[in-house]
Amino acid sequence: MTEPLRPGATIGILGGGQLGRMLAVAASRLGLKTHIFEPAADCPAADVAHAITCAPYSDAAALADFAAAVDVITYEFENIPTAALDILESHRPIRPNREALAISQDRLAEKAFLGSLRLTCAPHAPVNALADLEAAIARIGCPAILKTTRMGYDGKGQARLSSPTDAPAAWAAMQGAASVLEGFIDFSHEVSVIAARGLDGAVACYDPGENVHRAGILHSTTVPARLTPGQRSDAILAAARILTALDYVGVMGVELFVTPQGLIVNEIAPRVHNSGHWTQNGCAVDQFEQHIRAIAGWPLGDGGRHADVVMENLIGDDVDKVPELAQDRATAIHLYGKREARPGRKMGHVNRISRSKG
Amino acid sequence: MTEPLRPGATIGILGGGQLGRMLAVAASRLGLKTHIFEPAADCPAADVAHAITCAPYSDAAALADFAAAVDVITYEFENIPTAALDILESHRPIRPNREALAISQDRLAEKAFLGSLRLTCAPHAPVNALADLEAAIARIGCPAILKTTRMGYDGKGQARLSSPTDAPAAWAAMQGAASVLEGFIDFSHEVSVIAARGLDGAVACYDPGENVHRAGILHSTTVPARLTPGQRSDAILAAARILTALDYVGVMGVELFVTPQGLIVNEIAPRVHNSGHWTQNGCAVDQFEQHIRAIAGWPLGDGGRHADVVMENLIGDDVDKVPELAQDRATAIHLYGKREARPGRKMGHVNRISRSKG
Repeated sequence: MTEPLRPGATIGILGGGQLGRMLAVAASRLGLKTHIFEPAADCPAADVAHAITCAPYSDAAALADFAAAVDVITYEFENIPTAALDILESHRPIRPNREALAISQDRLAEKAFLGSLRLTCAPHAPVNALADLEAAIARIGCPAILKTTRMGYDGKGQARLSSPTDAPAAWAAMQGAASVLEGFIDFSHEVSVIAARGLDGAVACYDPGENVHRAGILHSTTVPARLTPGQRSDAILAAARILTALDYVGVMGVELFVTPQGLIVNEIAPRVHNSGHWTQNGCAVDQFEQHIRAIAGWPLGDGGRHADVVMENLIGDDVDKVPELAQDRATAIHLYGKREARPGRKMGHVNRISRSKG
Repeated sequence: MTEPLRPGATIGILGGGQLGRMLAVAASRLGLKTHIFEPAADCPAADVAHAITCAPYSDAAALADFAAAVDVITYEFENIPTAALDILESHRPIRPNREALAISQDRLAEKAFLGSLRLTCAPHAPVNALADLEAAIARIGCPAILKTTRMGYDGKGQARLSSPTDAPAAWAAMQGAASVLEGFIDFSHEVSVIAARGLDGAVACYDPGENVHRAGILHSTTVPARLTPGQRSDAILAAARILTALDYVGVMGVELFVTPQGLIVNEIAPRVHNSGHWTQNGCAVDQFEQHIRAIAGWPLGDGGRHADVVMENLIGDDVDKVPELAQDRATAIHLYGKREARPGRKMGHVNRISRSKG
């Protein structure tokens, strides 16, 4: 399928969380329907999607029926089982493509790919046993962080090592999973570039945002980020090289550390990204619509920034502040419709807007 | 119910057209679900609503079940049968209220109400027979326009009279319905004020837009409108007086003619309004979210304008221009997901954005 999707066509989305929800809303603006595939009942995207398939990723028949009901398939998270992707791809195109997924599913493959583009990553070494970890510490030093190569997000599947004596506990925390030791980077701050690439090869990047994490979860993103003009160009060019090298179609989040020695790529996410939520109130076309435009074969839209924005996540009980936040006229509220506010759960976000001179 | 709706609550919307669709999307941003009541199958709002009741307004059981399933009821059109409203209101609050609906359902009641606020309307007279019409023409003169008092929209149920000899044909076109003759106003242009009033009595008006109609259907709205500072104030104050007098809760569209003698109120619509679609790309909080905030008992949001916008409707085959429009980065596209592009059917709209100095 290389023709642009016509209004009335259906986009299949793997995953029914808040990203799927906001993708569905963006698709509706363009006259496109959405069909969500999600194992969990009563998911956030169900409120705004045209259709839902509630089934596990092991259900081959449900996957095939879902694929047959949609025109193109995308996803809101990268840890989709390979067998499910094989079934889906035999029916409909998956965008972004399998290569981007495979790379982002595996931290070592990701770093090898980034290295092949001569982009700088943190020093790292594969760890498949305690002896590997001890050898890696000897080379990379401490502090360092041990991560499973697969299925990690929001600080899960990670252990910090302050000294070599932490090695046995850190390795035990990985529960035998293939892992990677990453040296700590002495960075001043983290930025991310939300980049988009169309089916026609056009690349458009949003203005980089500056991220602050708390307890391993994104707390806030501020645009504009603190970057020199040269760093800003470097960040955008790095993102553009990544998307082009992958023949990528859609939106990607690229996290970078800012260091005195230059930018270091932390990780990539082949999907719309929490650090791009500010675009909902700072740009004519936000990251969600940009992603839909790309995977639907439409031209990319105008991602130019018309306001300064601070995006702040509402985590767990933060959502209780909504009545107060609603009083502030400079604060745009975005809630995900989740009933239960568990600790660490992303319940929504706010975009605090101030007018830029631009 | 005077407490603000909590995230997870459900808003019932009467009508599943494009206004209901965009209201549902706005509600989702605030973590609220929507349940649509709509007689027609496969309606635009169905793509993005949590639940749909597809039943006629004469189905008392369906109305009662719908009302029981929601927390508050609103509507996207004003011609809702009174009997249906009686059933609904016995279960849940209807916002905006019945008085606003009753007035806007009847052109004569509307003009009497506006007159009671000392707001100027077109010269007019009730017409229930050809003799009435002839007497009205003798008083008001020609050109004039004969309209049914009820159920008119987008130029339907109307007949223009160039001379008194047109009277028999015009009256015949009303098919015996109670009607009103309105004198033509010598206006330079039409503007509309999209006004909102919260449950707390706060009123907020968007910047007035300038409307151009073609073949009785809104063609475009441009902000800012051509208005002197005094006219702009008059327009906003007139709207605010109307909402306050009605103890109104929600968004209302107020259409006004600009004449050398001052502003003349054309008509009011107790709902989000086509001439307010520009707010989607010109304001932090658009008319749809403002309406949801009001009826949900939330504080009104920031309707300040940050861009100049020209909204243009995509009517019928206009939707074929979408691939070309999508190339223009200053054009935001909003489509309604309607499959069939019939002549005169509103298929979507575009907002052409330019940055204002504000």
